[in-house]
This record gives sequence, C-alpha cells and structure tokens, in this order.
Amino acid sequence: MAVFTPVTAADLATFLMRYDVGIATSFKGIAEGVQNSNFLVETTRGRFILTLYEDRVDLDDLPWFLALMTHLADKGLPVPRPVTDSVGVALQMLNGRPACMIEFVTGVSVSEPSPEDCHAMGAALGRLHAATADFAAPRPNSLGVAAWPAMAERCRGRLAEIDPALPMIILDGLAATRDWPRGLPAGAMHTDLFPDNVLLSGHDVTGLIDFYFACTDLRAFDYAVTHAAWCFSAAGGTHYPERAAALAAGYAQTHGLTAAEIAALPRLGEGAALRFTLTRAYDWINTPAGALVTRKDPMAFARRLQWYARATPAMISGAETAPSMVLGTETTPPIVLGA
Amino acid sequence: MAVFTPVTAADLATFLMRYDVGIATSFKGIAEGVQNSNFLVETTRGRFILTLYEDRVDLDDLPWFLALMTHLADKGLPVPRPVTDSVGVALQMLNGRPACMIEFVTGVSVSEPSPEDCHAMGAALGRLHAATADFAAPRPNSLGVAAWPAMAERCRGRLAEIDPALPMIILDGLAATRDWPRGLPAGAMHTDLFPDNVLLSGHDVTGLIDFYFACTDLRAFDYAVTHAAWCFSAAGGTHYPERAAALAAGYAQTHGLTAAEIAALPRLGEGAALRFTLTRAYDWINTPAGALVTRKDPMAFARRLQWYARATPAMISGAETAPSMVLGTETTPPIVLGA
Repeated sequence: MAVFTPVTAADLATFLMRYDVGIATSFKGIAEGVQNSNFLVETTRGRFILTLYEDRVDLDDLPWFLALMTHLADKGLPVPRPVTDSVGVALQMLNGRPACMIEFVTGVSVSEPSPEDCHAMGAALGRLHAATADFAAPRPNSLGVAAWPAMAERCRGRLAEIDPALPMIILDGLAATRDWPRGLPAGAMHTDLFPDNVLLSGHDVTGLIDFYFACTDLRAFDYAVTHAAWCFSAAGGTHYPERAAALAAGYAQTHGLTAAEIAALPRLGEGAALRFTLTRAYDWINTPAGALVTRKDPMAFARRLQWYARATPAMISGAETAPSMVLGTETTPPIVLGA
Repeated sequence: MAVFTPVTAADLATFLMRYDVGIATSFKGIAEGVQNSNFLVETTRGRFILTLYEDRVDLDDLPWFLALMTHLADKGLPVPRPVTDSVGVALQMLNGRPACMIEFVTGVSVSEPSPEDCHAMGAALGRLHAATADFAAPRPNSLGVAAWPAMAERCRGRLAEIDPALPMIILDGLAATRDWPRGLPAGAMHTDLFPDNVLLSGHDVTGLIDFYFACTDLRAFDYAVTHAAWCFSAAGGTHYPERAAALAAGYAQTHGLTAAEIAALPRLGEGAALRFTLTRAYDWINTPAGALVTRKDPMAFARRLQWYARATPAMISGAETAPSMVLGTETTPPIVLGA
C-alpha cells in the first residue's frame, strides 16, 4: 500500500542511465510494504525492484543493510542483490529520497504456512545465521530489549483504547524481559522474517526480503521472532506444534540451537512478542481513521506474549513432538553479546 | 494506490486452477489505479494482471467492458486480452468481488508526452474508433452530457471551497454544453485515454488499458477527451499546439475527423473538460483529509474548460499549424447518436 514518492517515466529513464541495465520496458508501483515506495522495473536486461526509502527506515543505516544483503547474496543465500551503478555504488538518490535498485526474485509469500514451509524457513534461517558469522560490522537493534520500556511509554496512555487487557499484558512483558538472557551467541540477523518477507516456490525458499530491521542481536532471538511469526494462527490464539517442530528441524539441518539457547526460548519469545505488540500498538494509535492502510492488530501478538509466558522450552523448540530433530550444533564461532 | 480486497497465495492458487495458465511463480499487489484491486501474477505460462472490481466500477457492465476489450484484441489493437477459464468464461468471482485475469502488456506511461507520443496516441485512437465500427452493443455514457447537471448538483454547495471561481466556471460550462452537437458519428470508445492509461515503448503504443469508463458516445467527444488529456500542461494553464497537431496527424492516418466533427471540437472540448472537472471536484470533496490518496486538482480541468470556451476548431484540430494533416476521411459506416 505504498508509493509515497512518485517517480515518472522520465525520472526513471534518467535514473537508469547510471546503471548498465538497459532501458525500461515496464514500470509499475507495488502496493506492498508500508515503509518505502517500491516499483517493479523491467528493462531490456532484467527485472528489478526500485525502492525509495522513506523516513520510517533508519536511513543512516542503509549502507549497512545493503552491505549485509550483498554479503548474503555473495554466500549464495536467496537474498536479492543490490545493483551497483557503473562506478560500483548501490545507494543512490532519486527525487530527493535515498534509493536502490535490487534484483527481482520470484516466489510467492504464504499466508498459512504448512509444516513443509516452516521446515524450509528454518533451514533458510540457519543458513542466514551461519552466513553472517564473518559479517563483523555491528548494528545495534534499535527495536531490541533495551528499547522496549521507552516504546511502551510512548503508547502508555492509550493502550486501553485498543483492549482493556493490553496495559497489564505489556507491563507483565516488560517485567519478564528485564530478566534477559546473557551470554548467548549473537550475530547479524533479519529480525522480521514474517511470511510476507519470505518468497517460496513450492516448499523452497527463493527469497528473503526486506532487511530494513536487520541488526546485531542474539541469534536465538531471531529464531524466537521467526517462531512467533510462523507457528501461530494469525490472531495469535492457537500455537501449532507441528509447525514449531518443522521449523526447529529445518534450523537444526543448517545451524541448530545450543542447550542454553533452547532454555532461553520462552523468555526470548516473550521479548519477540512484546516487540511486535509495541510497534503495532504505536502504529494503531497513530494511524488516522480514514487512512487506506490496514492496521495490524496488536492483540495478535499480545496473545502470543501470554502463550510464551506459560511455555516450556520444548514447546517452542519442537522437542515435545520431535525430540531428535532439535539438537543442533554450533557450527560457527559465536559473537557473544552482553557476556 | 490500491489493494482494497486482499488475496492470499492460497486464494490465488485455488483461483488459478480454473484456468490453463500453470501455477503462480510471483504475485504482487500493484499500487496503480484508485478504483480496483490489481495484482501482477506471474505463472509458469505467462504474466497477467488480476483485477478485483470494487464498487466504483459499473459492475453490471463488466461483461460489456470485457467483450469490448476482447473485440479490440481480436482486431489486433494493443489492448490486453481478458483470459478465459477452461470453459470460456472471462468474468469470475474471487473473495466476494467480480474478478478477471487480463494479459500483461509491457510499456511505460509517459507523464510529459512529446509530439511523437501524441502522434502515436492519435493513430492508436483512430485504430480504436475504426475497430469498433462493427461492435454493435451499446452502453450509454453514464458520465456523458446528460449526466453533468446532476453531477454538478451533487457538489454545488462545496465547489467554492475548492476555488472561489469554480462555481461560475461550472455554471458557464453547463450552459454552454446545453447546446450539444447532434448527428455526429458515434461508436464504442474509451473516453478516459489519459497518458496513465496508455503504455508506450519508445514512441510505439503497446497498451491501451483501463476500459472501465468505455461507452457509446460521439467519436469526436473521445477525440476531445484525448486532446484534453494529452495536449495541455498538467495544471491546465498551457496548451501545446505542436502536440495538438501531432495528435490530429496521427488520428488522420487511421481514421480522421469529418468537417462537422472539427467544427464541433470547441464545444466537445468544453464537455470533456467539464466532465473531468466535475468528477475531480466530487472526489476532492469526498476524500478524507488523512487518506493516502493523492487528490487530483479539479482546477486543472476548469482551466482547460476556460481554454476550450475561447478556442477555434483549428486550434484543437491542429489545422493552424499543420492544415494538411487534419483532413481525415470517414472510413467506417457511422452509428449516429441523437440524429
């Protein structure tokens, strides 16, 4: 639902001259994403997504995001590669906005993931975590555990308008996550791998996209985010153990969780659910009633938060249904945050 | 800026089974058009636009629109063909909305047409008018001359909020168009061929799209609409005679205007400008302030209306700059409206 900055055919033709990609044969605004302006550009030499970055993205960190995407594409991950211009630069400016052309990847996002989809997702997540072991540049998580008290404070007076139970759920979540795991392996990660940021062809992952929340954090936190995004009903009221077991089995094939990470999963899950409850609550409160944007329900993640508060490690890691699948090994030298 | 009705990958996969088009390899919402929900669908066998029709379109007339598009595609016009399912049906239902898959056409819309673009547009318009000579089914123009008084009445009390001069401009336009041309050739036509409904590759027209205002009316009225859409600055303050001459020259190559049509062009131009002034004024008044829709300025067409009120036939038909180009011949037996 997003073309905030218009781009004309003439703008595009001039812009494409910076690259060695031929001339445009088709050009359409894409209605996906609420943060940036996105266009599908076809040229005589290929297909690309042109993104103009709006103010909701951490613009100062764009070079880091693009470097991470390039690093992952170089490692053979299904990550679309930022296109560089004739002098090797990926990040450009267009119509006053930072802009980048990124390779188009095929695939379709699923809305109701099957266990097979979750297995593929887990395996891709493990490959991503393994591939960032030698990506040294850090980017702190601006939506991580340290930010949650302030994020809650920004919404505090209006949370009850969303749901009378929400203020207490968030207070409980903040209290629980003050006891945050320390000493777990960390690295660069995605932290927003919802199904709509993953393209699949059949049950193969063909694209991991939208790296604009990527950061350095605990790898098992990224695992918990992915579990929260893939293993519940959309409204958060139902957890699917068979999806959780499949996600864990896929992850174990390519990376795996340590015993300490598994033990921390309930708390990390509370944190993951709290993070999305808070950002959705903020957006809910600050979206005008007449706006043509579909607001995402904060309660869908408040319900997950309550589930994680009662969950055991085995319920999340899938060990209850498939114990042999979750014992992964630490294959890359861990960066340790907060150790 | 439009995906009003969501479609999931699962919805799409089930829907595609009705057709012989293979399975989806990519699926993206398109941010173009304010009337319908549009998706770009790539399958193993081709590329398509999937449209879900929202209530702003005359839904009862969808079979007529799709029949006209099919007729024009059959005649070799650059009109995307509606795809039929395995039993030959184009108009389907999806997620509670009427829906159709239409072939994808390449090309890019220009925002500032060159005279060459206008020549190509004129030639394509003439081909369209020639090709509908044997398309007998009529559809009255619900936004035509008979509707303008009521359209003005719906906005009357709030026109001055847009511009203090607007109420009087519209009253003058209504008074002028009460004297409406009679006996001119009529046929099925597009009546909304703005540059954003025309795809070009270089200076070749590769696509005429968005037929959801198509109807039966005076052919020279469609010519006047196209002139109003292509031959002025966006804000309507400047008329470009070289574009008008090129449009007329292109049209003369494939169809041509009769002497009676040329004589009627100033009045038809007033009507064309009045029609878009009125619909834009209505949308302006009824678009919520916070909505993420760019409102189109009614004054851009009010200025055109004032220009047509002072124009001579030769200023519109381009005869002042290129007299030899505008004398077309009537190549198809005319349907005569209001004769």
